[in-house]
Amino acid sequence: MVKMRGGDTSRLRRINLAATLRALRGQGPVALTELARRAELSRPTVESLVEELLSAGWLTELPPESGQMGRPARLVAFHATAAHVLAVDVGSYIIRATVADLEGALAGAHAERVNPACGREERLAAIRAAARSALKAANVSARQVAAVCVGTTGVVTAEGVVKLSVGLPDWTGVDLAGAIRGEFDCPVLVENDCNLAALAEGWTGHAQGVDDVVFVLSGVRTGAGMLIGGRLHRGGRGAAGEIGALPLVGWHRAPSHLTAYEGLPPGTQPEEAAAFVFARARTGDLAAQHSVDQYAHDLAEGIAAVVLTVDPDLVVIGGGVSRSGDVLLEPLRRHLDPLCLEPPALAISSLGDQAVVQGAVRHALNHVDAGLYDIDRPLPQAVKGDPR
Amino acid sequence: MVKMRGGDTSRLRRINLAATLRALRGQGPVALTELARRAELSRPTVESLVEELLSAGWLTELPPESGQMGRPARLVAFHATAAHVLAVDVGSYIIRATVADLEGALAGAHAERVNPACGREERLAAIRAAARSALKAANVSARQVAAVCVGTTGVVTAEGVVKLSVGLPDWTGVDLAGAIRGEFDCPVLVENDCNLAALAEGWTGHAQGVDDVVFVLSGVRTGAGMLIGGRLHRGGRGAAGEIGALPLVGWHRAPSHLTAYEGLPPGTQPEEAAAFVFARARTGDLAAQHSVDQYAHDLAEGIAAVVLTVDPDLVVIGGGVSRSGDVLLEPLRRHLDPLCLEPPALAISSLGDQAVVQGAVRHALNHVDAGLYDIDRPLPQAVKGDPR
Repeated sequence: MVKMRGGDTSRLRRINLAATLRALRGQGPVALTELARRAELSRPTVESLVEELLSAGWLTELPPESGQMGRPARLVAFHATAAHVLAVDVGSYIIRATVADLEGALAGAHAERVNPACGREERLAAIRAAARSALKAANVSARQVAAVCVGTTGVVTAEGVVKLSVGLPDWTGVDLAGAIRGEFDCPVLVENDCNLAALAEGWTGHAQGVDDVVFVLSGVRTGAGMLIGGRLHRGGRGAAGEIGALPLVGWHRAPSHLTAYEGLPPGTQPEEAAAFVFARARTGDLAAQHSVDQYAHDLAEGIAAVVLTVDPDLVVIGGGVSRSGDVLLEPLRRHLDPLCLEPPALAISSLGDQAVVQGAVRHALNHVDAGLYDIDRPLPQAVKGDPR
Repeated sequence: MVKMRGGDTSRLRRINLAATLRALRGQGPVALTELARRAELSRPTVESLVEELLSAGWLTELPPESGQMGRPARLVAFHATAAHVLAVDVGSYIIRATVADLEGALAGAHAERVNPACGREERLAAIRAAARSALKAANVSARQVAAVCVGTTGVVTAEGVVKLSVGLPDWTGVDLAGAIRGEFDCPVLVENDCNLAALAEGWTGHAQGVDDVVFVLSGVRTGAGMLIGGRLHRGGRGAAGEIGALPLVGWHRAPSHLTAYEGLPPGTQPEEAAAFVFARARTGDLAAQHSVDQYAHDLAEGIAAVVLTVDPDLVVIGGGVSRSGDVLLEPLRRHLDPLCLEPPALAISSLGDQAVVQGAVRHALNHVDAGLYDIDRPLPQAVKGDPR
């Protein structure tokens, strides 16, 4: 019902606070008169709402614009730097941390190299160090962080525990949310890295405006994440997209075709092997092209299983291999199309090695936005426990 | 915004018509005073809304209840028999047609046997004959049908054309919606049979209240349909659940283990083979148990691919084999669990051979309901073009 009764005035006010925020998000400064028009509210109501939003820290007031007649117009804007989000991508070799403001603009970033064979505590320490360095680069304190999101390989529970990981040593069972939570006075989200990359593709990548999208991480590891109806589909136990665990389809052996290429210089690290083989294939090296062909064959098997199950509108190939899309795309199409009922729409990600961390920014922002727009909860404060 | 301005009064009335219908659906007769309380509307407003809904045919008025004091209370109820839906399941051997009222109650049904080798025109004629017989059994005229839904094997386009079918001869390319539409003055929906069975499981079967469900049709054919977030997931091109097309997983060969059982009496029809082999396995026949085991092995491969891709909350096994759940479940679990990261929740359908036609009833009802509750469209009329 759209009518409001006596006890519902606070609810009506909460709805109007959310409407005022929506009318200001992603805009420049707006005059109060214009804001009243956009939010379909009276001028006195808007003034009262704006005062509450200014006091909670979500809006900022700009110097008044002097009109040609009468008093100057009050100007307000969404306070995009009222708080920030911190996003972390836990890779095998590199931990990436990014700080972004509430509109998603980059405020600072840091990449920390880590020994791929290192144990749990060393990796957790590297995550904390990367986070601290990114915050320092952004000149943002831990108290100014409204939400943290950490992306990791493996199956992640709703509580942020890595239930199963084959990609990182000593990683199964790590309570990643618990290990990070102590550093921050805000929610800490943990999500599978492929799921986050799918979110990133929907936000700024090829999947903008696309309903059903599968993101395939291809490189040293192979994994998948998906959006269904434009929303992240985690699965009942956080294990959607784990088709690589099925030995019948070739994801488990796909990367071995690249690391087994005989032309690799001695001492090539596994994470460098793919780039090397693709570069050689590009120059016309037949053995390298054969390795790429075998890799594409096995990658296609797992993609076909996902395509035949969910019938997505788009498949995006990302991860390390995405920089070699010119070499990969032809053999992948050749192996994939005959396995599917119809050739699926296929794109190579343009987000490169930023896909996971960008998806973590989006996931953290979604969490903050949910709090701002959830009319069943009180309006949160942008800055908490400020001892001013 | 919850405020309504001048031009929005007709929209407000449409919202209130929908709210009044919602307050009456699935209830018995309700007094107008009680209806006003439930819908949070004034008594004069409710009287006016009820008049419009009575006139459109969606409500029925009952003899007034004489109160102890003053005038008798007006009683109204949702008019569940104001219109009906027609549901058809196009099987290989049997065409089932069911007529249900607007609350889903069975009004009449008919099953028409058909030669599995028959051509397109003969099958279309059998569909029309089954529909006519079901309407006759329900004493409902074609004009009283508010929506038709036909379930068929194969990939179905949004326009109701069977784009691809390997299950029925001469069926690929048939414009099923077009072939039925001429008989009815209402929308004709066509949907994949496994998708409809998944809807039925969510409506009256094991998947009630479950978010993500995969229905596996097992028998002479093997197929899958799914609900994601409680809604039917068709896929971008209507081809979700077509994992059986991937030769790497064993669905294409699964039924052959049953039809190749050496103990089958000569002349056993394929559709009877499964029931026969399962019955023999139940008595302890080792060869039959071996056939069931091989069948379960191949069924498990395809189920594992779907489970590892979407991570559903529940997998329901239906179709012809569902009556032999006691024999199938143990070998299926034994083959399936090692292929999955965690053993999936598994249930045997209790809807038997009614799953597809029940899902078609639900799909048609959802279409009717969408028209009733869509506040962006005018209130439809329950009975159209009545020349009274």
